[in-house]
Amino acid sequence: MSSSTAGQVIRCKAAVAWEAGKPLVIEEVEVAPPQVMEVRLKILFTSLCHTDVYFWEAKGQTPVFPRIFGHEAGGIVESVGEGVTELKPGDHVLPVFTGECKECAHCKSEESNMCDLLRINTDRGVMISDGQSRFSINGKPIYHFVGTSTFSEYTVVHIGCLAKINPLAPLDKGWGVAVLVGVPHKDAVFKTHPMNLLNERTLKGTFFGNYKPRSDLPSVVEKYMNKELELEKFITHEVPFSEINKAFEYMLDGAGLRCIIRMEG
Amino acid sequence: MSSSTAGQVIRCKAAVAWEAGKPLVIEEVEVAPPQVMEVRLKILFTSLCHTDVYFWEAKGQTPVFPRIFGHEAGGIVESVGEGVTELKPGDHVLPVFTGECKECAHCKSEESNMCDLLRINTDRGVMISDGQSRFSINGKPIYHFVGTSTFSEYTVVHIGCLAKINPLAPLDKGWGVAVLVGVPHKDAVFKTHPMNLLNERTLKGTFFGNYKPRSDLPSVVEKYMNKELELEKFITHEVPFSEINKAFEYMLDGAGLRCIIRMEG
Repeated sequence: MSSSTAGQVIRCKAAVAWEAGKPLVIEEVEVAPPQVMEVRLKILFTSLCHTDVYFWEAKGQTPVFPRIFGHEAGGIVESVGEGVTELKPGDHVLPVFTGECKECAHCKSEESNMCDLLRINTDRGVMISDGQSRFSINGKPIYHFVGTSTFSEYTVVHIGCLAKINPLAPLDKGWGVAVLVGVPHKDAVFKTHPMNLLNERTLKGTFFGNYKPRSDLPSVVEKYMNKELELEKFITHEVPFSEINKAFEYMLDGAGLRCIIRMEG
Repeated sequence: MSSSTAGQVIRCKAAVAWEAGKPLVIEEVEVAPPQVMEVRLKILFTSLCHTDVYFWEAKGQTPVFPRIFGHEAGGIVESVGEGVTELKPGDHVLPVFTGECKECAHCKSEESNMCDLLRINTDRGVMISDGQSRFSINGKPIYHFVGTSTFSEYTVVHIGCLAKINPLAPLDKGWGVAVLVGVPHKDAVFKTHPMNLLNERTLKGTFFGNYKPRSDLPSVVEKYMNKELELEKFITHEVPFSEINKAFEYMLDGAGLRCIIRMEG
């Protein structure tokens, strides 16, 4: 695949989920040239997170099959569609699942729902695998609690823990803020006695940690390149693309936080 | 009753709720002299709100009987206990059900949970009896919606409406804020799909509209005295103390928003 393929339909390998919960099948698929404001990427590495597993199990919103997973990746721009001015073939990119146009009310909002609080890593690997983690934002402690009665200004709770944890209960009355993260089951219900809120606590949720990807992710990459962020500990496995089903197994048996999938050729 | 009664046990009339939902009985009760940091008041006028009715029906938290209701009142300080320096006999006062010491973290918090949003009248009479009311705070519209799909930055919903209304659904994603007001049933449950929060909406509750009573109420009284606030429309009935049970009837049949109860003698 090179820029000589620009404007043409290309044939690529893809791991296709034909049915919920069944092993992926590597197929050859046709990929159309990028349309207006689209880019086509050559993926070099990809990964699975628990959200992929969740959707593969058809537990997430709008289960659709057949489906090609892979929303965490790194790659190179192969070609760009009409109107794309900020990317060109050869650029190294991280595709993400949420956009930033920098023009709409959502992108321009100064009133970020989560403010500084959510400039933290709300990744499940951090939040759940390390139940005693303590975060500090602007000098204020943030607890991710599992079975503790410590009162605090903030709690950050993965949606998958709601059956066991009441994110509001350990919060200070008057100003405590609970933040829900993660991807919920399509039939999930959050329940609480309203008094937990009428005591002037706040419940929020966040999607992608409130990151604006184009504005906020480059500095994360830079921090990693400068060794200011230690991310290797979250990568527990690596497999070649041909063994992608092993990555699902690592997630399912609890051994895996992140499994890097190395594309070939 | 005069300041000559200071320091003595006095005998007063009180409308006692002996049992949930049964008519109050006017009894003579003994009232001890005010203890450290307490004051004893001669109540001139009192009122019933739906919260009184709710507790009288034993639907609120911690139902306790016998019980003397009346948390909305106006009166005169009869005598003060040890350590009281900011009130003296003869002062006109409005007793309220929440305090303000001006010293604790809750009183000093700059991070008011509700900010300007809750400097609105969160009284049930306004919120529920006038479903189409529109509030504007700092130029931002606030809708109290009943069965509308209008999207908005804020919703203010009485807890009693939660069975019919999802306070989160009509909110803008990204910054929409829902505020719960009122007193919940002791067995109430707030339920929602977590996605309603993960879309970066916020759910809050407030108690007494986040007013700090000593700091904030005098200016409300002043506004009323200057005719900047029209409160008469919320007062639908007036009865003498001997007919206090009529006040319950007005509330129960839906005819009453506020019934003033005139104390006698």
